[in-house]
Amino acid sequence: MSHLFRHNEGANPALSIPSPQPKDYDWVLISGFIVILTQVGFAFIGAGSVRYKNAQSVVIKVFLGLFLTILIWWLFGYGFSFGDDFQTKFLGGTKLGGSKWEATQYGNDYTNFVFRAAGAAFGIAILAGASAERMTFLGWSVLTLVYSGFIYAGLTHWTLAAGWLSSLGFKDFSGAGVVFFAAGAAGLILTVILKPRKTRFDNGATLEFSRHSPLYIGFGSLLVFAGWLFYNGGVVAQGSQTQYSQGLVAVNTLIAGATGGFVSFVIRYFQYETTNLVALSRGVVSGLVAVSAAADDMKPWTAFIYGFVAALFYSILAKATPSVHIDDPAEVIPVYLGSGFIGIFLSGFFDTKAGAFYGFGFKLLGYQLLGLLIIFAWVVFFTILTLLALKGFGVLRIDDETERVGIDKSQCLGEAVVFANQVDEAPLLKQT
Amino acid sequence: MSHLFRHNEGANPALSIPSPQPKDYDWVLISGFIVILTQVGFAFIGAGSVRYKNAQSVVIKVFLGLFLTILIWWLFGYGFSFGDDFQTKFLGGTKLGGSKWEATQYGNDYTNFVFRAAGAAFGIAILAGASAERMTFLGWSVLTLVYSGFIYAGLTHWTLAAGWLSSLGFKDFSGAGVVFFAAGAAGLILTVILKPRKTRFDNGATLEFSRHSPLYIGFGSLLVFAGWLFYNGGVVAQGSQTQYSQGLVAVNTLIAGATGGFVSFVIRYFQYETTNLVALSRGVVSGLVAVSAAADDMKPWTAFIYGFVAALFYSILAKATPSVHIDDPAEVIPVYLGSGFIGIFLSGFFDTKAGAFYGFGFKLLGYQLLGLLIIFAWVVFFTILTLLALKGFGVLRIDDETERVGIDKSQCLGEAVVFANQVDEAPLLKQT
Amino acid sequence: MSHLFRHNEGANPALSIPSPQPKDYDWVLISGFIVILTQVGFAFIGAGSVRYKNAQSVVIKVFLGLFLTILIWWLFGYGFSFGDDFQTKFLGGTKLGGSKWEATQYGNDYTNFVFRAAGAAFGIAILAGASAERMTFLGWSVLTLVYSGFIYAGLTHWTLAAGWLSSLGFKDFSGAGVVFFAAGAAGLILTVILKPRKTRFDNGATLEFSRHSPLYIGFGSLLVFAGWLFYNGGVVAQGSQTQYSQGLVAVNTLIAGATGGFVSFVIRYFQYETTNLVALSRGVVSGLVAVSAAADDMKPWTAFIYGFVAALFYSILAKATPSVHIDDPAEVIPVYLGSGFIGIFLSGFFDTKAGAFYGFGFKLLGYQLLGLLIIFAWVVFFTILTLLALKGFGVLRIDDETERVGIDKSQCLGEAVVFANQVDEAPLLKQT
Repeated sequence: MSHLFRHNEGANPALSIPSPQPKDYDWVLISGFIVILTQVGFAFIGAGSVRYKNAQSVVIKVFLGLFLTILIWWLFGYGFSFGDDFQTKFLGGTKLGGSKWEATQYGNDYTNFVFRAAGAAFGIAILAGASAERMTFLGWSVLTLVYSGFIYAGLTHWTLAAGWLSSLGFKDFSGAGVVFFAAGAAGLILTVILKPRKTRFDNGATLEFSRHSPLYIGFGSLLVFAGWLFYNGGVVAQGSQTQYSQGLVAVNTLIAGATGGFVSFVIRYFQYETTNLVALSRGVVSGLVAVSAAADDMKPWTAFIYGFVAALFYSILAKATPSVHIDDPAEVIPVYLGSGFIGIFLSGFFDTKAGAFYGFGFKLLGYQLLGLLIIFAWVVFFTILTLLALKGFGVLRIDDETERVGIDKSQCLGEAVVFANQVDEAPLLKQT
Repeated sequence: MSHLFRHNEGANPALSIPSPQPKDYDWVLISGFIVILTQVGFAFIGAGSVRYKNAQSVVIKVFLGLFLTILIWWLFGYGFSFGDDFQTKFLGGTKLGGSKWEATQYGNDYTNFVFRAAGAAFGIAILAGASAERMTFLGWSVLTLVYSGFIYAGLTHWTLAAGWLSSLGFKDFSGAGVVFFAAGAAGLILTVILKPRKTRFDNGATLEFSRHSPLYIGFGSLLVFAGWLFYNGGVVAQGSQTQYSQGLVAVNTLIAGATGGFVSFVIRYFQYETTNLVALSRGVVSGLVAVSAAADDMKPWTAFIYGFVAALFYSILAKATPSVHIDDPAEVIPVYLGSGFIGIFLSGFFDTKAGAFYGFGFKLLGYQLLGLLIIFAWVVFFTILTLLALKGFGVLRIDDETERVGIDKSQCLGEAVVFANQVDEAPLLKQT
Repeated sequence: MSHLFRHNEGANPALSIPSPQPKDYDWVLISGFIVILTQVGFAFIGAGSVRYKNAQSVVIKVFLGLFLTILIWWLFGYGFSFGDDFQTKFLGGTKLGGSKWEATQYGNDYTNFVFRAAGAAFGIAILAGASAERMTFLGWSVLTLVYSGFIYAGLTHWTLAAGWLSSLGFKDFSGAGVVFFAAGAAGLILTVILKPRKTRFDNGATLEFSRHSPLYIGFGSLLVFAGWLFYNGGVVAQGSQTQYSQGLVAVNTLIAGATGGFVSFVIRYFQYETTNLVALSRGVVSGLVAVSAAADDMKPWTAFIYGFVAALFYSILAKATPSVHIDDPAEVIPVYLGSGFIGIFLSGFFDTKAGAFYGFGFKLLGYQLLGLLIIFAWVVFFTILTLLALKGFGVLRIDDETERVGIDKSQCLGEAVVFANQVDEAPLLKQT
């Protein structure tokens, strides 16, 4: 059997973690299930981040992203990432379509599939935000299949499946680079190629469209916070009896998230004199993304630094992106591209086993930057290819009339929320 | 002690699952707790499926259903289903009111109660959708007590508690028949006896009332998806170290749900040229219902077929029910009655140990159809009896004025959502 | 290592629970994570309980409460409560800022931190409701730091960390007194010192402002119900294989919650002839609070009594508080102060090992009342001190204009929900 999981051997020797144990598949499964639950959070964030007239459509994209990711991972993605690559080190080729999946104490394709497919859906839910209000459902479905099933699966093979990039020395605990930075990179390309929403940058000024609901963004982000604790716990994949990893990772995740949220809130206040739920919400996720680079390999005060720097970087990018006329309704670029970069970058300094601050020189930093570059190039190349093909077929962007009226009313047979009490109304003349 | 749990001995020998182990009660409890959490999903689905003016009232029904189910299961339901039946094979008679509950490694009445009462609440939450907008709270409370405490408890005794129906040969992994098909059957009777909402089928046309919020239906259905993964995991009730069941069941549940959702979406597009969040939401639940018939006894591609056929059948029934003037606001009939039937039916063919496609002939199919018939007859008989009694006492359906104004405003002291900012308003003259 | 956890030795001997086992840290972590998820429930409850114009601001308070609690607990709270107090029995002094945290089979500071910090956030989320619509964000942040980091941490040291108050004989399973009664006491002081919302009690009548959404209160309360099951499971902190505690606690929690919700609903009907989702929602939480006093030390029928009495007491207090012109939008006083009191009080009678009804006399009742008195005095003293200081600096209450317009519009750059479709609107002239 190939290397199914990232083994934590030797991780954080200062804390004397025992040698690798049989995987705790309960953690893996429970985490995977809760990551599916976290999709509810992304649905809330998406619906809250767009204008009301497209709130339903962005949730449809979250659904399509989740469902197609599960199916394509079963057919291809899981084989590409966790199948045997016959020493090509490029893509796996066995275990496609659920064939020859095995299960032992040290590796179980079934539970691993659940956790990893859920992780892939994590990335695609982020991307749904970048596609919001502009992309067609058909285009989105194709992008999902290519991104989850090939682009992301490839990255997973090189890193989380213990492939060449992680063998080289690139470190990424639960996907700050491979899940979140990658999704952010794809989001950047997507939002640039899709072009801004109409009139978004008219009048020569930096304008803002009203989001449907900061409240929804808040509900969703809290849910994502809780989901992330489980997600990182599933990456540890060890029982929490007699050893540190599970607890340490959870503490670091908590602290980085809380710091990111609070610091963003404070910065936003000094930027705009507003006390903002959106800043809190984006900030907590930024902190979570950053800490995912090395949550098992840092001390709590380092997690604080990760959260702090991520919040700072998020705040700068959140202001910068609209000013260069990039229209990113769900702030995917500052939150995921930005904080993913920060997390991987900082771990070059703060990794307790190989970081510059612990006297190991800048070798790890080099690997980290190289890894980011490779991830960026890979994601950008194939995302551009896919989007240009979609554009060529004329299925990339919705038509003007749909954009004006809103996708919900135009294509989904009704608005996201209807307050009609119909006390005296004649029944609507729609066919069921 | 009687047979507390459905043992999985011999299940799926192709995958060489080891012989029965001590139950993993952590799974049972965690699943039970998350199934309670899933009630939030049903509350969202209910509130989103009805007209705004009754959104609060349907959530009240979910609450009443949950609370009364817990209480009646403690007093009667658990004893009826998991008590000793003294060879009558009809209903258990011990363990009523929490008396003489035991706990060993192989059976623990406390944890079993939590899981099974939560499962009973699963069924009643479905039924709440069928009662929406028309039934009185009193009538609903009585129906809950009878359905959860007697009708469903009886079915559980015959099947999930290893009773005569499952001994006979009827197979139902986690309740496609006994939980979901049964709730759908009760829902059918309920919606027929309640009669449609006023003016629903006027004007000689098939009309549709505007649902309060497709968005809520989406949020709720995603939550139900995640909850279902835990629910099926709790039925396995084995740790996921060293063996297949947990992972296999999770993979099948994921694939069937994703397939159901996606296929419904595509079919809806061809039916009405609309891209619909409701179709995605109902479809995923349909796939989940169907796969619950045999999630431990199939291969992933079979789960795909279950999801596909369930989505197809759902789409047909969702169009058919209003056309025969059955008014089912939450689509309980197509989703639960339809997909519950499909799941049990298909397992007659696809069961790896006894299905026709694996060369075992049509014996299992016969048992499956017989089981469905018995469930249907049992549920229909007692549901009709209960509803006619409620009708006789005049507490079945709300009065015309309440229906016109909406239950929320008329009986719940206010609407579901209030946007009054009250900046310059005089305080409302309501007593607290 | 000091006594990290409340050991359950000898708990409920009638049920013959085995002697203390190694802690099951999986339960502790999973519970802690889900308690973080429960913050979504409190956000819903808060947003639903206030007027629409302040819905966003109350969720901001939940966020700030959570984030600052995590940070202050890392820096101080955890050390104060679980550090070594060098026999002073007042406050711990080691383990501040994550230093010298240890991990063995019987005590793990990392997982313990996650669970206990989440528990502290439980309390502060309650308090957010009491501060709603009137307190400044700065004042709220300071109160959070003092309450979580010092007031609550101190109480924890005396009780949950096996300190002098619990050594004396005060019993509190998962925090009916130390978490919920204490938060209710702080809430009482807070709402009195903040004074009512403007015009709330004008016109010589008992008036009620329209809550934003009973629906949100319902969604949130169901989520809190599920979260509470995990929370109590985490306090047990034992695997659920071969013994009673986990299952018994879960059964009692379920029954008390269900009873509280249903009984409140019935009482509200007789009080006002209204069938109310808010009554159901507050009632279930009241039952949960009460049962948390002794969920491991009672029989299911006792849990029923706890839920019943809590609902009764809640109903009386919910009517009484506005009538004495105390303005408590989220009903923190009746739900938490009231039911916390009831739970601790009743356990003086119903505790199976020391209660009066089991023939052990009134000694336990005395300890329970003394404990409540001490908690009350400690919380009230330091809360008043903090609030007066905030008042002195003029940062306690929002200004009149903000209160009139609403915090959301005035300070958060926009309302909680925006339905503008912006079809023909010029883009808003706000800078991003």
